[in-house]
Amino acid sequence: MSQLTDRTTPASRAGTPATQVTAPVVDVAALGEVLMGRWADIRRKSRALAARPELRRIPGLSMEDHRARVMEQLHLLVAENAVHRAFPKSVGGGEDAGGNIAGFEELVLADPSLQIKSGVQWGLFGAAVMHLGTEYHHKTFLPGIMNLEVPGAFAMTETGHGSDVAAIGTTASYDPGSKEFVLDTPFRAAWKDYLGNAAVDGRAAVVFAQLITQGVNHGVHAFYVPIRDDAGFLPGIGGEDDGLKGGLNGIDNGRLHFTGVRVPRLNLLNRYGDVAEDGTYSSPIASSGRRFFTMLGTLVQGRVSLDGAAVVVSKLALTIAISYGSQRRQFTAASDTEEEVVLDYQRHQRRLLPRLATTYAMSFAHDVFLAKFDDVFSGAHDTDADRQDLETLAAALKPLSTWAALDILQEAREASGGAGFLAENRLTALRADLDVYATFEGDNNVLLQLVAKRLLTDYSKKFASADAGALAQYVAAHAGDAAFNRTGLRRLAQSVVDFGSTARSVGYVRDTDSQRQLLTDRVQSMVAEIAGRLRNASKLPKMEAAQLFNSNQNALIEAARAHGELLQWEAFTEGLRRIDDPGTRVVLTWLRDLFGLGLIEKNAAWYLIHGRISAQRALAITSYIDDRLLPRLREHALPLVAAFEFTPELIGAPIALGAEKERQDEAMAYYRTQRESGTAPLPEKAAVTKK
Amino acid sequence: MSQLTDRTTPASRAGTPATQVTAPVVDVAALGEVLMGRWADIRRKSRALAARPELRRIPGLSMEDHRARVMEQLHLLVAENAVHRAFPKSVGGGEDAGGNIAGFEELVLADPSLQIKSGVQWGLFGAAVMHLGTEYHHKTFLPGIMNLEVPGAFAMTETGHGSDVAAIGTTASYDPGSKEFVLDTPFRAAWKDYLGNAAVDGRAAVVFAQLITQGVNHGVHAFYVPIRDDAGFLPGIGGEDDGLKGGLNGIDNGRLHFTGVRVPRLNLLNRYGDVAEDGTYSSPIASSGRRFFTMLGTLVQGRVSLDGAAVVVSKLALTIAISYGSQRRQFTAASDTEEEVVLDYQRHQRRLLPRLATTYAMSFAHDVFLAKFDDVFSGAHDTDADRQDLETLAAALKPLSTWAALDILQEAREASGGAGFLAENRLTALRADLDVYATFEGDNNVLLQLVAKRLLTDYSKKFASADAGALAQYVAAHAGDAAFNRTGLRRLAQSVVDFGSTARSVGYVRDTDSQRQLLTDRVQSMVAEIAGRLRNASKLPKMEAAQLFNSNQNALIEAARAHGELLQWEAFTEGLRRIDDPGTRVVLTWLRDLFGLGLIEKNAAWYLIHGRISAQRALAITSYIDDRLLPRLREHALPLVAAFEFTPELIGAPIALGAEKERQDEAMAYYRTQRESGTAPLPEKAAVTKK
Repeated sequence: MSQLTDRTTPASRAGTPATQVTAPVVDVAALGEVLMGRWADIRRKSRALAARPELRRIPGLSMEDHRARVMEQLHLLVAENAVHRAFPKSVGGGEDAGGNIAGFEELVLADPSLQIKSGVQWGLFGAAVMHLGTEYHHKTFLPGIMNLEVPGAFAMTETGHGSDVAAIGTTASYDPGSKEFVLDTPFRAAWKDYLGNAAVDGRAAVVFAQLITQGVNHGVHAFYVPIRDDAGFLPGIGGEDDGLKGGLNGIDNGRLHFTGVRVPRLNLLNRYGDVAEDGTYSSPIASSGRRFFTMLGTLVQGRVSLDGAAVVVSKLALTIAISYGSQRRQFTAASDTEEEVVLDYQRHQRRLLPRLATTYAMSFAHDVFLAKFDDVFSGAHDTDADRQDLETLAAALKPLSTWAALDILQEAREASGGAGFLAENRLTALRADLDVYATFEGDNNVLLQLVAKRLLTDYSKKFASADAGALAQYVAAHAGDAAFNRTGLRRLAQSVVDFGSTARSVGYVRDTDSQRQLLTDRVQSMVAEIAGRLRNASKLPKMEAAQLFNSNQNALIEAARAHGELLQWEAFTEGLRRIDDPGTRVVLTWLRDLFGLGLIEKNAAWYLIHGRISAQRALAITSYIDDRLLPRLREHALPLVAAFEFTPELIGAPIALGAEKERQDEAMAYYRTQRESGTAPLPEKAAVTKK
Repeated sequence: MSQLTDRTTPASRAGTPATQVTAPVVDVAALGEVLMGRWADIRRKSRALAARPELRRIPGLSMEDHRARVMEQLHLLVAENAVHRAFPKSVGGGEDAGGNIAGFEELVLADPSLQIKSGVQWGLFGAAVMHLGTEYHHKTFLPGIMNLEVPGAFAMTETGHGSDVAAIGTTASYDPGSKEFVLDTPFRAAWKDYLGNAAVDGRAAVVFAQLITQGVNHGVHAFYVPIRDDAGFLPGIGGEDDGLKGGLNGIDNGRLHFTGVRVPRLNLLNRYGDVAEDGTYSSPIASSGRRFFTMLGTLVQGRVSLDGAAVVVSKLALTIAISYGSQRRQFTAASDTEEEVVLDYQRHQRRLLPRLATTYAMSFAHDVFLAKFDDVFSGAHDTDADRQDLETLAAALKPLSTWAALDILQEAREASGGAGFLAENRLTALRADLDVYATFEGDNNVLLQLVAKRLLTDYSKKFASADAGALAQYVAAHAGDAAFNRTGLRRLAQSVVDFGSTARSVGYVRDTDSQRQLLTDRVQSMVAEIAGRLRNASKLPKMEAAQLFNSNQNALIEAARAHGELLQWEAFTEGLRRIDDPGTRVVLTWLRDLFGLGLIEKNAAWYLIHGRISAQRALAITSYIDDRLLPRLREHALPLVAAFEFTPELIGAPIALGAEKERQDEAMAYYRTQRESGTAPLPEKAAVTKK
């Protein structure tokens, strides 16, 4: 695509027919359908559920009442047959992995505590039995889990170990005499902690412990362990209530510890590792490391659904803030009588519209992610490589979306002023609840580091046969010169040829291929640079290697973030193809440009330092965002949130449902009447002049 | 200062005696004294109060119980004689403006609801009577306000108008017949809203209303209005409870409206505007605009104290996160048995140490701010220019510190993982409470815009006599070439001369004068650029002028932020002079460098685009932060938070008080014993090898 000037009409720029030269219009219904995606029916069913008064959060409940209410709501989900989709058909499930997650994500609209507590019961506790157990466990345990006769905890995390699951302290030692496993908590740091259902409701738990038999520790395995009956904890089991938390107080998180707790041998969830009656250990996966990651990998759905829930909440927050911003007026900047709608202020647009673009990018990226998840878990595409890709996708997207949701909720709150701080308008409670999404199911920083390691591995595979010298040469060439992007299509050299006008500068980066190239090049170059610095790490003693790695840790995580952002951008760009309506596609292309150019603007220092964009182009990008994209998109802000398809019941927040407009209209009518009737008091200035 | 290489020892680099070549040591006690500042005694007294169990927040109280408890706490403050410092000696006060704020700020450590509710009673309601009223009002109303016999609301904000106070709808019309003012709320948007003490406790209010007499509206004035007795609202007054909020639920925020409510003429707080019995209006300030801003300006102490409280909370959050990060271990990176302390990870340092530097900068900046406030309100330096400077300082610093506090609380929460999410560790509740600091007492974005307008005014004053052509020329020269900073000492030209090594690149920006120059130049250049774009605004029709201004709004606010950051940096740098101990000064200079270089790194794109730093230097800054400053400062992180002088009672959070270390020690001892006794099970890998 050649250099385009800004005079090109939006329609022709987006490649739509030349007949469409008027302002584009968003086809809200069609866009809504695209956003709902593959599991639209299930999402809509789940939203209808989430709109029911019995499932809505009541602000200000005590922790005890909130917990009790959410437990009741879980029973209602069972009654509505809303929790069986993922489970095996042999026990009455639907074997619909993707649909299950899609439905589950939307529950966050009712109350994140409801979403997460049902996630604990069916997505973690139940899913562990399903994925780590075998036929016996499915038949024996899943029915009670599915119908909520047996609420359960997912007892993986310990007070002392969150991110480093392999290092947990709980042990399960096999006793061949009694043919039982004996579970023990050797010290306080090994208490299971932060477990939903542990403090009050749980009757059983899937407990992760070091499996020890015949004097050998075979690493972390999962065991089905009854923990409580009507009378309280079973013998050998103790625990504590985690008490009040920063959010999600509808969930009874707590601690568990075990002292000589015996469970039958068959309670080992033995899909990936088994112990025979005589204590002999066996596994279909020879490598203990690979076995561990395979077992953990089956639990990726937690990250999928947090990513999806973060997208849903971001959509809701922007629906609230943009609706309010379109009605709220403050200051008479351009007229003597009419106050401005706050969304007409450039700063307000800068605060909300790029976040709207990010939300669309996150939404399209989640669709890709969920489809990949479904491919793997339906068995349609379930190779080792597929699973690794899925886990990398999870580790890249969940951090970005959960952080973005917090940022969006906060900006929406502040953009709604004091009204945004009222509980009735929902933003503060949602933010409090989603806070922990940034650290559970994998701490965001740790996840991004996993992504970075994968990027490094991929990179080094390319150079597996090259000696260190060749690699160093490549890196040097890469850093000093412009690079090819992964599609190999285009060489970046605009810092040399870019002497043109602002319009030409912008024309270049507005182009889809150029955005892709800039974003891709950054990821590749960052990884190549780090790989170059780490190339001798394997030859160093462990401590020095660790130091070298540590001195690159921040850069690694930033590279992973850049990778995640590229994935989001690619998904958004791919999503544009699914938009048939020309007007909608024009607007969505602007929004995608806002996302892509926003990323380049945010990382402009990197692009400048590495000679990928000129100073002039960097300035032109900011001007293009401020002067073109924001004003254009402002006109479509309401249709763009309308396409999220939230009903008033789902929105809930009075400020987003017309209360503000009603007040503004009344006030304007009052002053108009005063002016027209001549009853308005004179302003002091006018009175002085009159004298 | 000449170019220094990195080999220079820290001690000699900071200009300390050559004898000190060993690692510097922070003198915690002396540094603590410096940080406590001018009102150290009052701060310590207030902290001792804040540590008392009766004043501590109890997590999980219902809104009703929390409100009742905070009201009780206010009575205790009265009993402890902790609320009289600012008031006139004539009514038993201390006339100590600065000391009063210093003491008030520290109360946030007990419970932000307590801080803000006492701020409503004595800092807003009482201060309005003091500053806007005259002798009669002081004698009549202050005693009951001071001893809490009359809890009161500060009724300025309306549902329809927050930031734009001049446009409030409430009217107070003078009736010469009865010699009364008649207060009315003409429509729903004019209800007073978000007022502490309005929902339950308030017996009176200072009500801001448009003063109308003899058919002329003289703009916003304040009236003392009784609102409630034992039986409830007085005739003509109505209201609503704002109900549950995102935080600060110990305060009974609510709404008020007035229908023909009559108050005696003398209830007009008449320091800046009065109405004679016959209805004639008079004011010592002729311009209605200047009068309005003068009246509002007396209430700047709200912003001062929010800034101070944000600093105190940031210190607390970092004390918690850094203490925990120094004890928490996760992953064995460098050894087979010992897990790493998480603060030894580069990423963890990147997350916490720059925020520690920001907190120090905020703390020193607040000292300057509070001293300025005291100068003005004690009358020591109280010219119009002083008041304007004070307000600009308030408008620049309050947004930066309140946003920073939220960011720091959140990072501290995430850095503390699941433990950070537990209510007992305080971070989440503090964040929820401080959320609204970003929008009350002036929306942060609106305040920064005020700063920007002041910067533009100052700038245009310089060019008052110059014609537009001269100004344009100046701007063009300024943008295209290097600029002088305000001290006129040094010309920036390193993009030309900077061909040296990384060490030389860093040596330059490590230098105090260079940091100052880079930071100052950025503010000046940004303002000059915007002024250039706006230079014709005054000749345009109002609507076009507004559009032109609006198209620069985001840039304006960013310029204001840069100005605020420069103020913080200057205050930090000035603060270094108060450090006598050489070791402490070395460490604090590193911390100041981390702050200053962090700002330059954050805005590297601007510096690169404008030719102020070279690409090489930009890279060198990041390396210097990662490879030098972070590892150096990590060693001093604990002393640097110890200097905040929080006792265990004030910290409160178990994770910051040794609980984690105890758990880690126990776990390490357990594994050590196992290893030494030979009872540890073999890892599977070792067992396989053995076979």
